[in-house]
Amino acid sequence: MKSYAQLSKEELLALKGELEAEYREVKGKGLALDMSRGKPSKEQLDLAEGMLTILSTSGDTSAEGGLDCRNYGGPIGIPEARKLMGDIAGVPAENVVIHGNASLTIMFDTVSRSFSHGVLGNTPWAKLDKVKFLCPVPGYDRHFGITEYFGVEMINVPMTEDGPDMDIVEKLAAEDEAIKGIWCVPKYSNPQGYCYSDETVRRMAALKPAAKDFRIFWDNAYSVHHLYEGEENQAQILDILSECEKAGNPDMVYEFISTSKISFAGAGISAFISSKSNLDQIKEYMNFQTIGHDKLNQLRHVKFFKDADGVNAHMMKHASSLRPKFEAVEQVLEDSLGGLEIGSWTCPKGGYFISFDAMEGCAKAIVAKAKEAGVVMTGAGATYPYGKDPMDSNIRIAPSLPTPEELALAAQVFVLSVKLVSIDKLLEGK
Amino acid sequence: MKSYAQLSKEELLALKGELEAEYREVKGKGLALDMSRGKPSKEQLDLAEGMLTILSTSGDTSAEGGLDCRNYGGPIGIPEARKLMGDIAGVPAENVVIHGNASLTIMFDTVSRSFSHGVLGNTPWAKLDKVKFLCPVPGYDRHFGITEYFGVEMINVPMTEDGPDMDIVEKLAAEDEAIKGIWCVPKYSNPQGYCYSDETVRRMAALKPAAKDFRIFWDNAYSVHHLYEGEENQAQILDILSECEKAGNPDMVYEFISTSKISFAGAGISAFISSKSNLDQIKEYMNFQTIGHDKLNQLRHVKFFKDADGVNAHMMKHASSLRPKFEAVEQVLEDSLGGLEIGSWTCPKGGYFISFDAMEGCAKAIVAKAKEAGVVMTGAGATYPYGKDPMDSNIRIAPSLPTPEELALAAQVFVLSVKLVSIDKLLEGK
Repeated sequence: MKSYAQLSKEELLALKGELEAEYREVKGKGLALDMSRGKPSKEQLDLAEGMLTILSTSGDTSAEGGLDCRNYGGPIGIPEARKLMGDIAGVPAENVVIHGNASLTIMFDTVSRSFSHGVLGNTPWAKLDKVKFLCPVPGYDRHFGITEYFGVEMINVPMTEDGPDMDIVEKLAAEDEAIKGIWCVPKYSNPQGYCYSDETVRRMAALKPAAKDFRIFWDNAYSVHHLYEGEENQAQILDILSECEKAGNPDMVYEFISTSKISFAGAGISAFISSKSNLDQIKEYMNFQTIGHDKLNQLRHVKFFKDADGVNAHMMKHASSLRPKFEAVEQVLEDSLGGLEIGSWTCPKGGYFISFDAMEGCAKAIVAKAKEAGVVMTGAGATYPYGKDPMDSNIRIAPSLPTPEELALAAQVFVLSVKLVSIDKLLEGK
Repeated sequence: MKSYAQLSKEELLALKGELEAEYREVKGKGLALDMSRGKPSKEQLDLAEGMLTILSTSGDTSAEGGLDCRNYGGPIGIPEARKLMGDIAGVPAENVVIHGNASLTIMFDTVSRSFSHGVLGNTPWAKLDKVKFLCPVPGYDRHFGITEYFGVEMINVPMTEDGPDMDIVEKLAAEDEAIKGIWCVPKYSNPQGYCYSDETVRRMAALKPAAKDFRIFWDNAYSVHHLYEGEENQAQILDILSECEKAGNPDMVYEFISTSKISFAGAGISAFISSKSNLDQIKEYMNFQTIGHDKLNQLRHVKFFKDADGVNAHMMKHASSLRPKFEAVEQVLEDSLGGLEIGSWTCPKGGYFISFDAMEGCAKAIVAKAKEAGVVMTGAGATYPYGKDPMDSNIRIAPSLPTPEELALAAQVFVLSVKLVSIDKLLEGK
């Protein structure tokens, strides 16, 4: 297809007329479709139905060592849950502390604790004039939300297909003692679905930050969330914990994982993974904050999945449900926008999102246009700190919740919106 | 029986000889008994066995309004859980936000948030030179632990049978702007089992603190934890929320409840109860901190208990299990120590503890003596801020976990320890 940029003003106007007619027709259908949220579908949730009844009598509620999971005790999690979550992340159980139903809460509490009590004896961040975080962009809005809530100054770092631009990360971290952390989604990143290369992981682990209490916030949210079968189609990334240790930075990383998109989005279990020194600090904190997290739910997960192989097999069932949805969206994008040079998008092999980059200055208008025709997208800008995409270009597409048929329809509305907004943009320059 | 104080030196020495022989005998038995922890027994936990399987298929996982409790959404809790917890506390559902498996965590996070973000627009406590809390004593060690962790200066306020000494509370709160809160367990207090009188609740609600951001931390942990049947044997306390509103202090109280000692100690649900303004602030916080708490567990609770009547009926089953244990301990105390004037104790009608006051300077030695003979008590001092009982007198007895037979035995060891340590104390003065 011919690039829109090569069309004359008259051609663009003619095309606009056709597309507006199409848009009016689709708008008349009164659609109500949602591609905004990274929520599992009912079909995916049903996959874990057996977990609901896997504990049925008090005989089933004992953990290894005899602890009754119904009662108090075992503040850092039952041994078998620590092992399971460690196996998922590829680390020993001793590096794992189990938390509640969301790794987001561990991240929030970790930032909060760094402000109130500091990191391993360093000055509490609340007592510093300025705290800054590096934010690979586009990224996850809820990460940026946490640091914004605590008044952290966020610095954009561009993402590449191999992870954050490490030249920039290394330079900034080494220069500025106020930079205390970096948000990372290393595997099937949100929203692009990019995976950190071995070089990126190694350079991250070998950072020489000016701040002694600099921490990598390693949100391994999609560690087993492949869309395709077969190892050759599945990303593998290096274990950041052992890389940090090798690089002489054993305490520099906090890793977070959860089963939110493995078992139940609202009722999973999560884990904080780190070095002994960091775990000692979080254990002290937990000793005041909690009575330990829900051990019955930990036991449900262990009994249902049994081990990492069980988790991986389960994730292939998720893949069977999710893959056609990703493919449906990608097919429409390719068929309708391929060659037009008014947008580009990612085709991830895992995770929950497709990232779309519109022409500069078009994202907000596209999202608004799609909404007007009954298709809700994630708000433009959401993938950037403070909700501000400097290029007004990035749009996150979440294909998990609707059916493939709904998705094909929603994607049609989306591409129509992209075309109309892009034409207006191009006409401005004619 | 004759008071020990009236015995001569010779009589005391003779008695000591007899008791030491008894103690040696009991020590030889190699006992391993535990009266230290407020943990429900297996028998109590079994009462809620039906909750384990009450959700069995995806058809069971919808909340009112159709929200699928397995998925994301419903951050402040499902409507029916808010209603159930509101009914337990005697407040409307709109004043209730559901949290995770421990009200302790809500209290911790509330203190943490007050430090990082302040209370309703007031200066964050982290930016103040000094923050103080009033601590009715004896009280709950984990309350004091939270404020100690945040560097709060804790001020002891004596408890009476009607609640904290309100003359002191009123005076201190009115005088000192650094006093930002008070820890309260208003019903069947920990450890004494005292219940705040109507006058105490009304005076608490009508406080005129110097600090605009003063808050009453109202830990209604034992609101339905009666030991006896029949309303005439069950404490009723006034609802602090409506009393605060009547007194023109609608935002002055945070109330906390949980089902930890109703359903499962490690896997219950909890609730934050407060005014609209306070809830708005906690909702904003939760919007960053959580994806909402485990809704499947909320639904389990609602389906199992149905309503407040269901909870009350269930609590009478707990009472049947707990009452003989309290009575066993109280019987031994009365039979062995009555009239000796070397200790006094409470006989609560609810809650989880009996509070024992030894002669001044004896508590630590008694706990050590009992431990030497195989009976673990809560550490002496634990019921005071910083673990320091200025009189070294108070000992908390937790009768819930052992069997009545074990308790009778453990109580025998305890009273023997009390007698021996008291005699040594009295001999010092002879």
